[in-house]
Amino acid sequence: MRALCWDGATAAVCDRPAPRADGDYVVVRVTVAGICNTDLELTRGYMDFRGVLGHEFVGVVDDGPPAWRGRRVVGEINFACGHCPTCAAGLGRHCPTRSVMGILNADGAFAEYVAVPIANLHMVPDGVADDAAAFCEPLAAAFEILEQLPSAAQSRCVVLGDGKLGLLAAQVLAAAGARVLAVGRHQRKLAVLRGRGIETVTLDAWDRTRADVVVEATGTAAGFALAVAATRPRGTVVLKSTVAHAAPLHLAPVVIDELTVVGSRCGPFAPALDALARGTVDVTSLISARRPLREGVEALRLAAEPGVVKVLLEP
Amino acid sequence: MRALCWDGATAAVCDRPAPRADGDYVVVRVTVAGICNTDLELTRGYMDFRGVLGHEFVGVVDDGPPAWRGRRVVGEINFACGHCPTCAAGLGRHCPTRSVMGILNADGAFAEYVAVPIANLHMVPDGVADDAAAFCEPLAAAFEILEQLPSAAQSRCVVLGDGKLGLLAAQVLAAAGARVLAVGRHQRKLAVLRGRGIETVTLDAWDRTRADVVVEATGTAAGFALAVAATRPRGTVVLKSTVAHAAPLHLAPVVIDELTVVGSRCGPFAPALDALARGTVDVTSLISARRPLREGVEALRLAAEPGVVKVLLEP
Repeated sequence: MRALCWDGATAAVCDRPAPRADGDYVVVRVTVAGICNTDLELTRGYMDFRGVLGHEFVGVVDDGPPAWRGRRVVGEINFACGHCPTCAAGLGRHCPTRSVMGILNADGAFAEYVAVPIANLHMVPDGVADDAAAFCEPLAAAFEILEQLPSAAQSRCVVLGDGKLGLLAAQVLAAAGARVLAVGRHQRKLAVLRGRGIETVTLDAWDRTRADVVVEATGTAAGFALAVAATRPRGTVVLKSTVAHAAPLHLAPVVIDELTVVGSRCGPFAPALDALARGTVDVTSLISARRPLREGVEALRLAAEPGVVKVLLEP
Repeated sequence: MRALCWDGATAAVCDRPAPRADGDYVVVRVTVAGICNTDLELTRGYMDFRGVLGHEFVGVVDDGPPAWRGRRVVGEINFACGHCPTCAAGLGRHCPTRSVMGILNADGAFAEYVAVPIANLHMVPDGVADDAAAFCEPLAAAFEILEQLPSAAQSRCVVLGDGKLGLLAAQVLAAAGARVLAVGRHQRKLAVLRGRGIETVTLDAWDRTRADVVVEATGTAAGFALAVAATRPRGTVVLKSTVAHAAPLHLAPVVIDELTVVGSRCGPFAPALDALARGTVDVTSLISARRPLREGVEALRLAAEPGVVKVLLEP
């Protein structure tokens, strides 16, 4: 099958054996996949990954138990063991022996087919188009903020970064009731939010009034200091950016202002699918471009360009 | 009066006009003061401070309202305005226009006399000796961990650092019911904790089993990475070290393991005085040396030496 692979030095579309179903895994024929910032970070050395990239997808179960065959599905990306103490505590997304689709010891979804544990599958409601369903994974990551910090829904929130995750996080927080100010560099990206009644400002025009909760979704190492400075004493910084390299950081302001910094990664699929079905979040306006999988390398390059939001791949 | 001053380049014992009482401030004749790591950081550029150093003290009210004159007191170090929204929210320790004794825009207690707002005074119970009362401020900082994270009392905690604050934090957490492992470099310092039934280990012998809560009290920039690695997924790092300079840090592990990092600074004096009165925390074993104020410069040097815990100054 065709797949977009990373060998530690180069991304290339290559030919790979298709995965096969077994007792625990189904094989999904990928319909649409989305390029995430993490994919770009992986090609800069993050996680030291080798294999098929991609972890945002929607597809149809091609092989597996009859109850699943032909179903349109999305899949959670952390493949947990299911029986260790961490899994027993309900923290399967943190299972110490997990693999992670397209990120850690598991091939990803930038391919014609991808293997997914049955335990990770979610059926896509009929009213949700493939293009929207492909956003389920990053949208779930935005809902993770509310799972970790339910009080954010009653707070003044600043979302830093008008990339994919920033635009989703701003919408999820606003839909939950938070007073949201989205801060970014690109008027055109922020327009998606203004269209939904969310206040936005460009970085240079922002007055930097300190907020209760600041979501750091800039995808850059510089975002941390910006987020810390924008958080009121005893407030919370939600860290969403995963950056491959170490960066010089001042932690003294975190101590002096007694900030809480919450690392936030993957989230629950159920509220994300529900939001997609109800249309409380607009995801399709985030689509900047779509490319066939055979142009995957070019698509990665495109996704890294300023001003580009989501690039979709079609196998 | 005699005072130990920092002019931005040099610490020196100098002659200063004694402070005077007014409607809001009393003047305290300092009996005993303690040298804190923050004092050493101030002499490395932290906070860009100039003035009389020192914020840990016990003394007797020398001038002020009759109800306070002659009382043996300790004093909270954040001088709040008392009427801004932050103060109204009960967060006077974070008042944006505060001064901080011996740290920010207010002269400190390494002097014969120090001015303290009446609102910041606490009377010292009769059974608490001056040497013990001088520990009230850092002990309150240790109690701040429980104020911010009450669940720590039911958790497996690692305390990193066998300096002054680490030894106090380990005792406070253990007394509250936490299962504490104290990790340090100096067997002799850790012995204080072993004598109170607290488990200890040296850094090189530590198996690094990940804990629910890790208190970073090493006073070094390197402590952060160590603390992050020692915290279980979804666990909490309590940051106590204030380090003057920026250091290269990896934040990706905070995101991947969804850690919560809680900056923690000054704490409540009431539980600290109560612990001193009940003897649930041993502070006087932490005294390594005492010096007259006129030898203050030498005392600062001594306090920076490895193996030295608390150095007390006597005006």
